[in-house]
Amino acid sequence: MADSPILLTPGPLTTSETVRRAMLRDWGSRDRDFIELNASVRRRLLAVAHAEASHVAVPMQGSGTFAVEAMLGTLVPASGKLLVLSNGAYGERMLTIASRHGRRAAAIRNPEREPNDVEELDRRLAGEPDITHVATVHCETTTGMRNPIERIAEVVARHGRSLLIDAMSAFGALSLDARSLPFDALAASSNKCLEGVPGVGFVLVRPEVLEKARGNAPSLALDLHDQHVAMEATGQWRFTPPTHVLAALHQALRELDAEGGVAGRAKRYRENLRILLEGMRAMEFEPLLPDDLQAPIIVTFRMPADPRFDFGSFYDRLHDKGFVIYPGKLTREPSFRIGCIGRIDAADMRRAVAAIRTTLQEMGVASGRPAPRPQGETVS
Amino acid sequence: MADSPILLTPGPLTTSETVRRAMLRDWGSRDRDFIELNASVRRRLLAVAHAEASHVAVPMQGSGTFAVEAMLGTLVPASGKLLVLSNGAYGERMLTIASRHGRRAAAIRNPEREPNDVEELDRRLAGEPDITHVATVHCETTTGMRNPIERIAEVVARHGRSLLIDAMSAFGALSLDARSLPFDALAASSNKCLEGVPGVGFVLVRPEVLEKARGNAPSLALDLHDQHVAMEATGQWRFTPPTHVLAALHQALRELDAEGGVAGRAKRYRENLRILLEGMRAMEFEPLLPDDLQAPIIVTFRMPADPRFDFGSFYDRLHDKGFVIYPGKLTREPSFRIGCIGRIDAADMRRAVAAIRTTLQEMGVASGRPAPRPQGETVS
Repeated sequence: MADSPILLTPGPLTTSETVRRAMLRDWGSRDRDFIELNASVRRRLLAVAHAEASHVAVPMQGSGTFAVEAMLGTLVPASGKLLVLSNGAYGERMLTIASRHGRRAAAIRNPEREPNDVEELDRRLAGEPDITHVATVHCETTTGMRNPIERIAEVVARHGRSLLIDAMSAFGALSLDARSLPFDALAASSNKCLEGVPGVGFVLVRPEVLEKARGNAPSLALDLHDQHVAMEATGQWRFTPPTHVLAALHQALRELDAEGGVAGRAKRYRENLRILLEGMRAMEFEPLLPDDLQAPIIVTFRMPADPRFDFGSFYDRLHDKGFVIYPGKLTREPSFRIGCIGRIDAADMRRAVAAIRTTLQEMGVASGRPAPRPQGETVS
Repeated sequence: MADSPILLTPGPLTTSETVRRAMLRDWGSRDRDFIELNASVRRRLLAVAHAEASHVAVPMQGSGTFAVEAMLGTLVPASGKLLVLSNGAYGERMLTIASRHGRRAAAIRNPEREPNDVEELDRRLAGEPDITHVATVHCETTTGMRNPIERIAEVVARHGRSLLIDAMSAFGALSLDARSLPFDALAASSNKCLEGVPGVGFVLVRPEVLEKARGNAPSLALDLHDQHVAMEATGQWRFTPPTHVLAALHQALRELDAEGGVAGRAKRYRENLRILLEGMRAMEFEPLLPDDLQAPIIVTFRMPADPRFDFGSFYDRLHDKGFVIYPGKLTREPSFRIGCIGRIDAADMRRAVAAIRTTLQEMGVASGRPAPRPQGETVS
């Protein structure tokens, strides 16, 4: 068994050995032992968002996108209209899903380096009474941007519309308290800040909203309503769950508690971010976002201008030193990304920064400084 | 870590310790190491069905039903019409999926104790030229029935229609050779006779058929065409794959080879079946199916008539002895099921039969004999 690399990505992430070892047991998917484990996972997921009194947790097989598609496909009815706040690939993905489902949808688009526009949201909701649902991405993984979820939720609630959140890369690390922040549903997955392994997502959803969504879903597998009804009736999944992945998630949620919950985890991630930014800036790398918009999840760096810097070689050399980084996903300029999340700490981050420094030296790259930004580039 | 029970179910199944230990490493989902692992899994899946020259293997996140829904949703166009051969819950599930997708569909239904009706299939295809696709279930897990896949394939090919196979519980244990048995697509999953862990399915599909299916899928996540195109272009999955589950499947496929492929595995399963049937018949339990229709996958037993036999108690007592069995799924009479598949051998099966014998004694049940079958009960 090769050692695991340190994954500096938006997920799948580095997990603890105890989380991985939780997968060494087989489970009968309809057996009482697994039913208990599954119930415990669902309770713990609600607790992360203080949503025990207001929401139910419905797990869904597959990646995070499967959970987002289940949320949109089940909750937005054929008669509805979805408004998506988009400033990156994951906002655009929700628009693609709505289009596949034949649902009416509109967008408020902002450039990748700007947060969702809350004033424009307010105007659109005031002027377009046919908009029934609003969707946003809590942390837009394309850039690492933290969107203003509290203000968005306030505006959507004031207009009496339904708020659906893609909280994929934020859940477990950015505080989101269902007691004070009104939302109808939120989708996330096991393998990001919860530090489980990939293979399952989940939606936290108000039961009274889900109940009204019966028959909406254009899919059998991704029908969140039916998934919930069956699970409530028998404690079992409709279709085979990824049992080992659930066991790992259960262990991961225990380890989140042991770390002091979201606050404890966020503290570690913020320290990882601080070390990363400090180390990278010392080499003149330039983060895409100003610090006040940067979530402690993943950082997008502009590509260095030095012609000796080749990203493929940079990636491979870091890989051989045991660090896996991530390509960029910006539409307008070359970039790459380095994550702060997963079971990594300040010492790992310092080692990563040192490995990047060594790699630049090996490549003969003097500095990580990017080319000057073109004029007017912030306007999309 | 509690010991794994012996899972006598249709899956998830008992896996080898080496398969589970393959999950102890983390993988970057877009890293070259995982790209290589994924390519190897895809090659090995094709080899199981001797389909290297005719098909491509497209993995899909989720349970087997997700793969079946991806197959049907992507390959049957809005202008198509699906004919489903149904003699159990999994045939019916394909009809439900077609209905969710708004596709035209028809069924040839047989009672659960009868195989798919090939003569009726021949007549329907001759008389209904608007039927474009035929779907069947290779081994109907509802009962354990092996359907006559060779004759079905011959008839569908003769009429020039497209054959789609749900091979979920058969793949890896019942021989299916793409060089001699014509089919356009086949869906199965990691956690049945391949003896991997649950969390991923796959579809073997002719590339020229998949190419024509662009834009058909009513889902983003379950679009088999787009999944394939992206994977061919980059070697990567579109959306986060269950990396640890894939690593386990890779190890499981190596262990299938080491056992002598499908022939070697089928031999062990047939011996498991023989011991199970012999042992259960000695206690007067009655299998639902005659031996010539019984696949060496899972056996449905009619419920004993002795009033002291309570299935819940029977299940719990076997559970406490380390064996997990499975409830029945017949529509017309009470039953339960015991699987022959997974990483279990003759010694395990003898221990299971002994545990069942002890359990009957504990419950004061003299015999597993069911009530006499009602008259005319084979006609659905």
